Amino acid sequence: MKTKLISVGDEILIGQIVNTNAAFLGERLFSSGFPVDKNVVIGDEEDVLLSELSDSDKNYQVTIITGGLGPTHDDITKPALVKYFNDKLKTDYKVLDHVRNIFSSRNIVMPHVNNGQALIPENSEVIWNSNGTAPGILIKKKKKVFIALPGVPYEMKPMIDEIVLPFLKNYFADELKSVYMQKTILTTGIGESSLNELIGDVNDVIGESKLAFLPSSSGVRLRINVTAKSSKEAESKIDTIEFKLKEKIGDYIFGYGEEDLESVIGDILRKNNLTLSVAESCTGGRISSRIVSVPGSSEYYIGGVCSYSNELKMSLLGVKKETLERFGAVSSETAVEMAEGIRKLTDSDVSISTTGIAGPDGGTAEKPVGLVWIGLSDKNNSFAMKFLFGDNREINIQRSSQRALEILRRHLLNIKIIF
Amino acid sequence: MKTKLISVGDEILIGQIVNTNAAFLGERLFSSGFPVDKNVVIGDEEDVLLSELSDSDKNYQVTIITGGLGPTHDDITKPALVKYFNDKLKTDYKVLDHVRNIFSSRNIVMPHVNNGQALIPENSEVIWNSNGTAPGILIKKKKKVFIALPGVPYEMKPMIDEIVLPFLKNYFADELKSVYMQKTILTTGIGESSLNELIGDVNDVIGESKLAFLPSSSGVRLRINVTAKSSKEAESKIDTIEFKLKEKIGDYIFGYGEEDLESVIGDILRKNNLTLSVAESCTGGRISSRIVSVPGSSEYYIGGVCSYSNELKMSLLGVKKETLERFGAVSSETAVEMAEGIRKLTDSDVSISTTGIAGPDGGTAEKPVGLVWIGLSDKNNSFAMKFLFGDNREINIQRSSQRALEILRRHLLNIKIIF
Repeated sequence: MKTKLISVGDEILIGQIVNTNAAFLGERLFSSGFPVDKNVVIGDEEDVLLSELSDSDKNYQVTIITGGLGPTHDDITKPALVKYFNDKLKTDYKVLDHVRNIFSSRNIVMPHVNNGQALIPENSEVIWNSNGTAPGILIKKKKKVFIALPGVPYEMKPMIDEIVLPFLKNYFADELKSVYMQKTILTTGIGESSLNELIGDVNDVIGESKLAFLPSSSGVRLRINVTAKSSKEAESKIDTIEFKLKEKIGDYIFGYGEEDLESVIGDILRKNNLTLSVAESCTGGRISSRIVSVPGSSEYYIGGVCSYSNELKMSLLGVKKETLERFGAVSSETAVEMAEGIRKLTDSDVSISTTGIAGPDGGTAEKPVGLVWIGLSDKNNSFAMKFLFGDNREINIQRSSQRALEILRRHLLNIKIIF
Repeated sequence: MKTKLISVGDEILIGQIVNTNAAFLGERLFSSGFPVDKNVVIGDEEDVLLSELSDSDKNYQVTIITGGLGPTHDDITKPALVKYFNDKLKTDYKVLDHVRNIFSSRNIVMPHVNNGQALIPENSEVIWNSNGTAPGILIKKKKKVFIALPGVPYEMKPMIDEIVLPFLKNYFADELKSVYMQKTILTTGIGESSLNELIGDVNDVIGESKLAFLPSSSGVRLRINVTAKSSKEAESKIDTIEFKLKEKIGDYIFGYGEEDLESVIGDILRKNNLTLSVAESCTGGRISSRIVSVPGSSEYYIGGVCSYSNELKMSLLGVKKETLERFGAVSSETAVEMAEGIRKLTDSDVSISTTGIAGPDGGTAEKPVGLVWIGLSDKNNSFAMKFLFGDNREINIQRSSQRALEILRRHLLNIKIIF
C-alpha cells in the first residue's frame, strides 16, 4: 500500500504558513495502516499538479490532495482533476443547498462565484464538508483512489476522521494485513529528558513497539505505536505498555489522545459538583478562555477577572493596598489574596490565580521576566507556588496557564503537587 | 531559476514533527530570489532519495536537502550523494577536530560512530556547522548546485543565513535578473468570495503580478507577489496594486504582514491615550487574552471580567435583573449593559462586551447556536450589534473575538461599522 500526499499552495512553499496539515494527515494515515511514502508540496500551478497526478497514478494506490479547492481563480485542484481524468463538471444540488444554507444562516448574500463550489467532476463522489463550503472529492480508478480535500484545517480534519479513513479501511480491507494501533498519553509538568530518566530503559517498557516523545509548551505527549495480527493483540500490547508507563510516571499523566487539561478538569469538577473561578494577571484571560473552550463549561465555571492593573486587583478582588506595597503585585501574598478574592466574589468552591512578569520588559534582578506566582484557594486552604518560565512572553503565558490548571487538577485529585 | 527542497525523515512523514524547516527555508529562499518550486518530503530510504536527486539534476538548478546527515545507519543523505555522483568519502580533518572538540567540551567520550561525521564526498565542499557535529555538504555540477544540511533547526538556520544564501546569490549573480517582492494585506469582517466580488476583475488590479487569497477564521489575508528588474520597480508595482485594492476594500484592511488586530488596536489606543476594558461572556476571556498577548498592553489595558454566569453579570457588571428576565442574557440590552458596566467598573475610556450562544448546545429556534451580540461603550455612546457565526464552538469564539476587536478598531478610527 503506497500513499502520497500532495499539498497545494504557494503560501506553503514560500513559508507563509507551516504545513501542519501534512503532519496531521501523516499521523492519522500512519496509524490507520496507510503510512505516507511521500509528501509533495507544490504551488498553485495546474501543470505541476497534473504531472504529480500522473506520478501518483503510476506509483501510488492512495493519493490525498489538500488545498486549492476554493472558489477563486488561483484554486487549481478541481480544474486539474477534471483535465487529468478527462471528465466534466456537474452541479451537485445537495452541495449547492449546503453552500447556500451556510451563507443564509449567517445572513450574507451568497456571491455568485460560490455557485462554482457545488460543481464536482461527473465521475467522482462528494466528501461532505460540514464546516465549510468546499466539498471534498473522491475519485476511484480500479484499486487506486484520489481524494481532494480543502486546505482549511478545521474543515479538513473532521472529513479525514469521519469519512476518509473509514472509507480507506473499508476499500482496502483485503490488503491491510497488519493492524496498526496507537495511543497517545498526555503528560505535563515535566520535561522530555526527566521523563526519559524516570522511564529508564525504554526497550524494557515497549519491547518491539515504538514510543515517541512529542514535546510542546503544554507538556510532553508520549505516543505508543504497535503493530499486531489482530485488534485484540494490539490492544493488549498497548495496555501492557501503558501499565508499565503508569507505574513510573503516573502522576504526570493527565489524559489521553485528543483530551486537554481543561476538559479533564471539567470532568472532575462536574463529577464532584464543584464550581470554579479564576483571577488572572499575567495570563490575561488565557486560563479563562481555555476553560470556556470546553462545551458545557457553564455547568461548573462561574467566571473570572483579568485584573491587569493594580487598581482592579484592589477594587475587584480585594487585594490589600499594604500587600501590594510591601510584597509587590508579583508575590505569594498577592497571588493568595487574588485567589481568595475571586473565590469569595463569585462564591465558587475553588479558584486559581496568576500574577507574574510575562515580559519581554518589566523584569528586575530580584523579580526577573518569567517569574510567576500561581495561587489556589478553596474552603479549607489557600496557597501559592513560584515558577520561573523564561523570557518569551507567549511561552510564559502558555506555561503559566498550563501549570495553573495542572496544580488545580492535582489539588482536586489529591495528587502531591511537586514539579 | 528553479529550486527544489528535499526534506528527509520518517518522523516528518508520520507527523511526529511538523516541517517547520521547510517554512523557514521557503521564506528565506523566496526573499533571496530563489523561490521554492517544489518541496518533497521523503522517508529515510536511499533509493527514494536517489530518484529525487535524478529528478533534481534534470529539472532544478538549486537543490537543498535537509536531514539524514547524522552518524547512524538510518542516515541516508551522504551515502545517496556518494552513490549518485559516483564519488568516494574522505576525512576532513578540520571537521574531525571540530567534532572531537564538541564532545570534549561537554566532557563526553566521543562514540566511535561520530568519526564518520568528518567523512565528506571528495568532490564536495564543507558547509561549516558551528552548532553541531554534522557538516553541511555543497556539490557543484556546472550551473547546478546540490546542498545538504542537517535537519536540526538551530544548526541548519545559521548555516542558511550565513553561508548558503550568500553563496547562492554570488554563484547565480548573472542569472538573478529579477527582484522578488511580496506584501501581505490583512483584512477582516468579510469572506473570501465577497472580497473577490468587491475587487472585481483581479487582473485589472494586479496585471502580471500575483494575488493570493488566504482565508482563516480571523479574516482573509491578501498576498501580493511581484517580480521586477529592480527593488524600486518592485516597490512601485506593489504600491500601485495596494492603492487599487485600498480604493475597493480599504475599510476591511486592518494591517500588513505579521501584524494582528490586537497589536493594531494597541497602537491606536496608545497614540490616543485611551484605556480599554472588556466584559466577556461567550468569548470567555479570549478577547482579554488576545489583548494581553501584545507586549506593553498594560499601558492601555486595565482589565476585564469574564461573567460566565448571570449572577456575575448582575453582581459585577451591574446588568439589571429585569434586563436579563425580559430580554435574556443574549440580547442587545444585556450586551450594552455589560459594556457600560465594565467601563464604569474599571474607569476606562472605552469598552467592549460579548454575549452569545457558543454551542454546541443551548440554542433555541429564536436564539440559535452562533447568535452573538457584541457591545461597545464610551463616554458618548453605547451600542450593540448582532451576528450569526454558525455552530462550531471554537470558530464562534474566534469569530466573535475577532469581530469585537474589529468593531473597536473601526469605532476608534471613525470608520463606518458595516459588515
